Amino acid sequence: MTTLRTPGPTIGVVGGGQLGRMLAEAAAPLGVEVLVLDPTPDCPASPVARDQIVAAFDDEAAIHDLATRADVLTFEIELADQNVLDRVSEETGTPVHPDPATLETIHDKLVQKRELEAAGIPVPPFRAVEDADDIRAAIDDYGAPVMLKARTGGYDGRGNVPVESKADAEDALESVAGPAMVESFVDFEREVSVIAVKGDDEVATFPIGENIHEDEILRETVVPARSSEAVTERAHAVARDVLDVMDGRGVYGIELFETIEGEILLNEIAPRPHNSGHWTIEGAQTSQFEQHVRAVLGWPLGSTTLRSPTVMTNLLGDVGEERPAQLSDIDDILETPAASLHWYGKRDARPLRKLGHVTLSAADEDAAVEDLLETARELESAVTFRS
Amino acid sequence: MTTLRTPGPTIGVVGGGQLGRMLAEAAAPLGVEVLVLDPTPDCPASPVARDQIVAAFDDEAAIHDLATRADVLTFEIELADQNVLDRVSEETGTPVHPDPATLETIHDKLVQKRELEAAGIPVPPFRAVEDADDIRAAIDDYGAPVMLKARTGGYDGRGNVPVESKADAEDALESVAGPAMVESFVDFEREVSVIAVKGDDEVATFPIGENIHEDEILRETVVPARSSEAVTERAHAVARDVLDVMDGRGVYGIELFETIEGEILLNEIAPRPHNSGHWTIEGAQTSQFEQHVRAVLGWPLGSTTLRSPTVMTNLLGDVGEERPAQLSDIDDILETPAASLHWYGKRDARPLRKLGHVTLSAADEDAAVEDLLETARELESAVTFRS
Repeated sequence: MTTLRTPGPTIGVVGGGQLGRMLAEAAAPLGVEVLVLDPTPDCPASPVARDQIVAAFDDEAAIHDLATRADVLTFEIELADQNVLDRVSEETGTPVHPDPATLETIHDKLVQKRELEAAGIPVPPFRAVEDADDIRAAIDDYGAPVMLKARTGGYDGRGNVPVESKADAEDALESVAGPAMVESFVDFEREVSVIAVKGDDEVATFPIGENIHEDEILRETVVPARSSEAVTERAHAVARDVLDVMDGRGVYGIELFETIEGEILLNEIAPRPHNSGHWTIEGAQTSQFEQHVRAVLGWPLGSTTLRSPTVMTNLLGDVGEERPAQLSDIDDILETPAASLHWYGKRDARPLRKLGHVTLSAADEDAAVEDLLETARELESAVTFRS
Repeated sequence: MTTLRTPGPTIGVVGGGQLGRMLAEAAAPLGVEVLVLDPTPDCPASPVARDQIVAAFDDEAAIHDLATRADVLTFEIELADQNVLDRVSEETGTPVHPDPATLETIHDKLVQKRELEAAGIPVPPFRAVEDADDIRAAIDDYGAPVMLKARTGGYDGRGNVPVESKADAEDALESVAGPAMVESFVDFEREVSVIAVKGDDEVATFPIGENIHEDEILRETVVPARSSEAVTERAHAVARDVLDVMDGRGVYGIELFETIEGEILLNEIAPRPHNSGHWTIEGAQTSQFEQHVRAVLGWPLGSTTLRSPTVMTNLLGDVGEERPAQLSDIDDILETPAASLHWYGKRDARPLRKLGHVTLSAADEDAAVEDLLETARELESAVTFRS
């Protein structure tokens, strides 16, 4: 049986950005303490966490220190180094969840896709890219356009380059500048995601969210997604199959394509709480962050039931160049019933940087998500990033 | 228009117990920072707050330090000293909310009752007590029993002594040991409370809660209270009248008696978030703690709408004597959908000390609060305070 003491169990988190901050916010009511490791002094998670270790994400001595002060280690960024985490865990006896091996699988998009395909997960047709010929061959096989992807280091669409014709192959490859893979371009009806949780001997999935991207950066998540029941069920089934492949406990953000034909194809996996799951803080019985806390501690998972239809909209840095972060005219958000403001405490705004988000939950269960989405967009466009 | 910067506005809180902790938890998503002042090193609020100043509640130099580091001061305990707060505010220019004068009014129960009665708030018949004769006179006037109350320093029923007959007057007065007052004993149908908020130029009241006490300590709050519509309206009207008397922005916990005849009488006021408002964290659109943050900063207040029927049950130290705090067998709570565990991070358990609480929200709007209350009690009785 689970027991709480004071001080409660301590989770050491590699990374102290907004995900670490919201993890600390979710841990606090449970009496669970959070320590973060992040190279930026006074990182977003710092004021909410018990303490911050200021160090690089792969600083082995610092991660060793983190591990000795924690009951379990986890990470909120894919930049965490698998080998370092493995060694530190071995030396200190502090477990790491999810398993660092998961990081390696996910870190390289080609390895990720191969493993998932081998496990029977539906993925878009893809192949490794050694030279421009491979891209041209992909265009022959899949038809143009194709999506060229950097195998490592990309996020928020960075490192993804659509290739419209064979003539563009060389330039595209040069722009990616590193190991690459190429995928068939998916003609999707919508992008959806499932936040899935692997617990000690149980799994849970949240209702699927519909994700609206612009310039490959998430703008809004709408829950429930406007998908058919059959598609929704299929998305959950794929998410559960993905969890079978993943090692170690924790929350996974599983991004999917719903094709024009109503098929579900896997897009990408994040082995951590995910931007498209922020709606769960107000919209679900248990948030993705509390689920991650429960999962990594080996506690029973919570209910993933939707409380009411919910829309999340990101507050992205709407600035021409880097400047101190400032959000003005937040009154509309504060005055809208069921709107919840989240500000991440980042010092500087940069173009399209994620600085916060707003969640809007419906007052009643039958509210139309279209209306919520419209209101959320009005709230997002009412704020400004200067005084 | 309201603007957020990083670091956000900072609230300095005198007191760092569970109320300060939950205030810090509510402030974090808004990008608002919290500093607490508390004499207990590593007090409950400490791991969640930006920083703690370890000092006595009336340490003027330390409160001066707190004020210079904060944009606004508030308090989560009535022990804060009005004169110290006034002087510090004068010297530093940092405002204090609610107004420290409110503390003086509330600190002395006789002064409190006189002011409220003068403002037309319905209160039980009461009188000052100079000697045992005053108690006996009260018994003549109101009938036995009467309630003898210490004018200052009492909370959770401490300092309240029922006097059954004139023969007990001397002993009762001795047990109170200090300035006292006496009230007519109210034959109530139920005890209810209204969490009320005074903003910059607006007020808000939460749905009324029904409070179940045992040994004068709150055990459970049930929302909505099982009062008639007329009584509910009357309770809200009285709460708004009370806010008119109070100076300064913030949350007030207003405890009321609903008499057998369906009248509302004021019992006591706390000029701060209140135990009987903890249900708002999950049960209302905006929690009492977020409302206090908004109010003291002069931000617009949030919606007080009930999300679904909710029951809160306290986790009180069920120990024979002081020992390290430990809560075992929490699995039933963690596994119950819509049950939320709050553990305050207190180092030591003492008999009946408030160590945490559990909130249970209904899955649908029409759920019977009786069923919720039964489940909440089962959850509360399943945990143990030893391994």
